[in-house]
Amino acid sequence: MKYTEMTLQQRQQEYAAVKAAYEQQKALGLKLNMARGKPGSEQLNLVMDMMNVLVTVDDYVDEGIESRNYGEVAGLPSARRLFADILGCKAEQVFVGGNASLQLMYDAVSKAYTHGLLHSEKPWSKLEKVKWLCPAPGYDRHFKVSESFGMELITVPMTDEGPDMDLVEQLIADPAVKGMWNVPKYSNPEGIIYSDETIRRLASMKPAAPDFMLMWDNAYCIHEFEGEYVPFADIIALCESCGNADMVYEFASTSKVTFPGAGVGVMAASRANIDYFTKLIGIQTIGFDKINQLRHVRYLKDKDTTLALMQRHAAILAPKFRAVLDALDREIAPLGIATYKRPKGGYFVSLDAMPGTAKRTLALCKEAGVVMTGAGATYPYGVDPNDSNIRIAPTLPPVAELEQAIAVLCNSVRLAALEQLGV
Amino acid sequence: MKYTEMTLQQRQQEYAAVKAAYEQQKALGLKLNMARGKPGSEQLNLVMDMMNVLVTVDDYVDEGIESRNYGEVAGLPSARRLFADILGCKAEQVFVGGNASLQLMYDAVSKAYTHGLLHSEKPWSKLEKVKWLCPAPGYDRHFKVSESFGMELITVPMTDEGPDMDLVEQLIADPAVKGMWNVPKYSNPEGIIYSDETIRRLASMKPAAPDFMLMWDNAYCIHEFEGEYVPFADIIALCESCGNADMVYEFASTSKVTFPGAGVGVMAASRANIDYFTKLIGIQTIGFDKINQLRHVRYLKDKDTTLALMQRHAAILAPKFRAVLDALDREIAPLGIATYKRPKGGYFVSLDAMPGTAKRTLALCKEAGVVMTGAGATYPYGVDPNDSNIRIAPTLPPVAELEQAIAVLCNSVRLAALEQLGV
Repeated sequence: MKYTEMTLQQRQQEYAAVKAAYEQQKALGLKLNMARGKPGSEQLNLVMDMMNVLVTVDDYVDEGIESRNYGEVAGLPSARRLFADILGCKAEQVFVGGNASLQLMYDAVSKAYTHGLLHSEKPWSKLEKVKWLCPAPGYDRHFKVSESFGMELITVPMTDEGPDMDLVEQLIADPAVKGMWNVPKYSNPEGIIYSDETIRRLASMKPAAPDFMLMWDNAYCIHEFEGEYVPFADIIALCESCGNADMVYEFASTSKVTFPGAGVGVMAASRANIDYFTKLIGIQTIGFDKINQLRHVRYLKDKDTTLALMQRHAAILAPKFRAVLDALDREIAPLGIATYKRPKGGYFVSLDAMPGTAKRTLALCKEAGVVMTGAGATYPYGVDPNDSNIRIAPTLPPVAELEQAIAVLCNSVRLAALEQLGV
Repeated sequence: MKYTEMTLQQRQQEYAAVKAAYEQQKALGLKLNMARGKPGSEQLNLVMDMMNVLVTVDDYVDEGIESRNYGEVAGLPSARRLFADILGCKAEQVFVGGNASLQLMYDAVSKAYTHGLLHSEKPWSKLEKVKWLCPAPGYDRHFKVSESFGMELITVPMTDEGPDMDLVEQLIADPAVKGMWNVPKYSNPEGIIYSDETIRRLASMKPAAPDFMLMWDNAYCIHEFEGEYVPFADIIALCESCGNADMVYEFASTSKVTFPGAGVGVMAASRANIDYFTKLIGIQTIGFDKINQLRHVRYLKDKDTTLALMQRHAAILAPKFRAVLDALDREIAPLGIATYKRPKGGYFVSLDAMPGTAKRTLALCKEAGVVMTGAGATYPYGVDPNDSNIRIAPTLPPVAELEQAIAVLCNSVRLAALEQLGV
């Protein structure tokens, strides 16, 4: 029975029952974490063979390049080819960096401020105001980068096809709007895949700012945990064909392919942009860790081999997502107090609880030892106007722990909703 | 006989003889490189055991921290302790980053521009002018960072005790002077060790700028190639004792201890600065490569073990520096056309050729297949006002090749001097 259809007395009975169950869970003294999209130890163990691909001194030389020494600021040519294969673009359009794509994103924005981009009239630090489009719910770390630079963050609602493009096309007419975050495949947190039409409209838009940054964080481009691999567009070529060659910056990493702490991050962009950034980054560093790049090249080999590895990750992840969705289907769906998506890839399940109850829900979770991503984190400035969105990150805990955690979450969602409705 | 004491006829005879020798060298079709301070392959092979310290899955867990996963933006606690031991400061004063200390330096400067430092009145990008002190001859990559941000570079002459402190103390009275580069031990390129008095004056100076950055690139802090290890001051504690706790930023790396391409870079500063930067860098990345940090911790262990390793590097490097100095002593010293220092550590020998001949000398080297650091590179904006300083980087080539290269250099120095004197 839906909570909204219950009488006060029914809600009171229900509250007492759920509360009792919640108190029992609380008494267990749980210490569970569904806060971040962290791979679990089974996944870390899965890729340990990567640490054995370089053995002899000769192994460290790649196509004549000594990976142990200085140099190759844009990355090993073989690593650039590997990621070009995965992303479907050209090797010359790929810059291979250190262990984090977030750092490449941050540095790209930072250089827009300190040096300006290829088509900037001046460095952004010299501008009165910089505005940025933030499809929401979205990735908190993206928003924090923008916020840290003092940008004005503009929320763009997400639809089932991606960001609301009618609104985006209006907003980009403002020359102060300098960029936009995107996670086009298995968006964080909803797991939405941008539709072809959305991608076409994004690639062909004509922002008033000549140096607009279409930030294309393809974090989950090969990260299916259910069903077949879903091909994705080469956004670099697509933007080029629309006369927007230098507008797009694509990012990806192996943080959820090999090791989160010691993967490889890449930026892909037009040849002109890669040349421009390689020159600028050449002031910042003599080169990133080529030994780790080489490990990745020798281990991942090519897109097909990498996709085969991703199926083995999927086999570990699928039961975790199933545990979450089964619990929500059983415990929450019938009550009419929350909605959620059914992603087939990515690292999250996004739950929209009854408006006004997300913070309270997460406080209840915390009280019972279950740490979740902070309420509001998926919105610019950390403020969810509806206090509704909850990001569930089910990948770190083993299934048995996850089932406990999600049971706590379900009871917390129910309690918060009943409190809101009145008990 | 000194060239300056020769008659025109004697110079002409000498020129013909040297030219003939030079042409013979040129005919060998050499391809030698003394341009950068790159370790040679013997040194790279020396530390290969570091790649074998992590074997089992348990090896990757360090004091309860899973090095393979996300987190620990300031570095593994064990890595922070290791570098505190080496630098003589406290672990809480150490930030362990990725594979390059240059990147930490660049990012510190970049954040001064975009966000401001702890004691900044505003971000430097909002200032009319930023000036920076550049002891010269110095490290070209330092100067390029400053230049890239549009700073006005002010040359401070180097003395045998370090930078000219009388001048420094005058210049810092200008509030637009925001910082200063230093390589306090085995300075690049001269190999000078700052005297205790110079260090004391630097630590106790009172710049007009409240957010002055004393950049302390301790790149060669344990890099003796001759003689005993020379202890160095804990600059962090020294500045603190002078009431300048937040003025200094110390940098070091294992680029010339383990692998240039895959070492570990660190920044050390006051606890307040490290906290400030950890927060800012926490927006930029979830964490640097902790697996590589852990490899270093397990392999280098502590300062004593690291110093023992440095002696093994020294055994490889000493004959290379001896080859350079022997050639200079034999071929150049008697002619009165150049001076040079006799460093006991670091990666360079600095040669001051007859004024007006450095460019010509290096052009002659290049013609004969010997690539050197560009003339002027050791001065701000790449312009040596005397066209005299030549940086010799003898570490990369094997001794036999090095002897050929230095012979070409000696003949080039002689030819350029003779041309300058008139032949």
